[in-house]
Amino acid sequence: MITETAYMSIQPGREADFEAAIAVARELVEVTPGCRGLTVQRGIERPEVYLVTIEWDTLEDHLVGFRESPRFPRWRELLSPHYSEPPSVEHWTPVDSPAE
Amino acid sequence: MITETAYMSIQPGREADFEAAIAVARELVEVTPGCRGLTVQRGIERPEVYLVTIEWDTLEDHLVGFRESPRFPRWRELLSPHYSEPPSVEHWTPVDSPAE
Repeated sequence: MITETAYMSIQPGREADFEAAIAVARELVEVTPGCRGLTVQRGIERPEVYLVTIEWDTLEDHLVGFRESPRFPRWRELLSPHYSEPPSVEHWTPVDSPAE
Repeated sequence: MITETAYMSIQPGREADFEAAIAVARELVEVTPGCRGLTVQRGIERPEVYLVTIEWDTLEDHLVGFRESPRFPRWRELLSPHYSEPPSVEHWTPVDSPAE
């Protein structure tokens, strides 16, 4: 399992529009094979920034399975009008705690 | 519920030491009232960076309950020798999806 983090900075005054758009767009991700779930959070220190966290079975499920699907252009079409800058996306692997 | 994100950049070659240190230090957080859980992940694009995510009942559980406890200096003592720069910490609130 890997985690995708996407930081989305939103234009001032468009926060409600962005929240409505991602409430629709999230299904485009969630139906993708290998997607385990998506959460949307808003910054306390930076309320203009949203942190979208998506769990995937593999990196390829995101980079190939979603980004090369016809759902990706639709995702961008729904969300990009609200961005103040391009999203910042990274991926993370779990670090297991040693057994005690 | 709120989420704390802490990005920890580690000195080259000290990754295993950091992972061993946080495997011990995490209990200092986990025993704090209001802590719902802590996860440690490592960057795929930036393997020198770890993302530590901690869920708290409230912001005060972190900023007062943990940071003003005697456990916080011990946490820093265990982890800070491995940092290449000070950690970057932010907090996030969930954005609910509208009911369909």
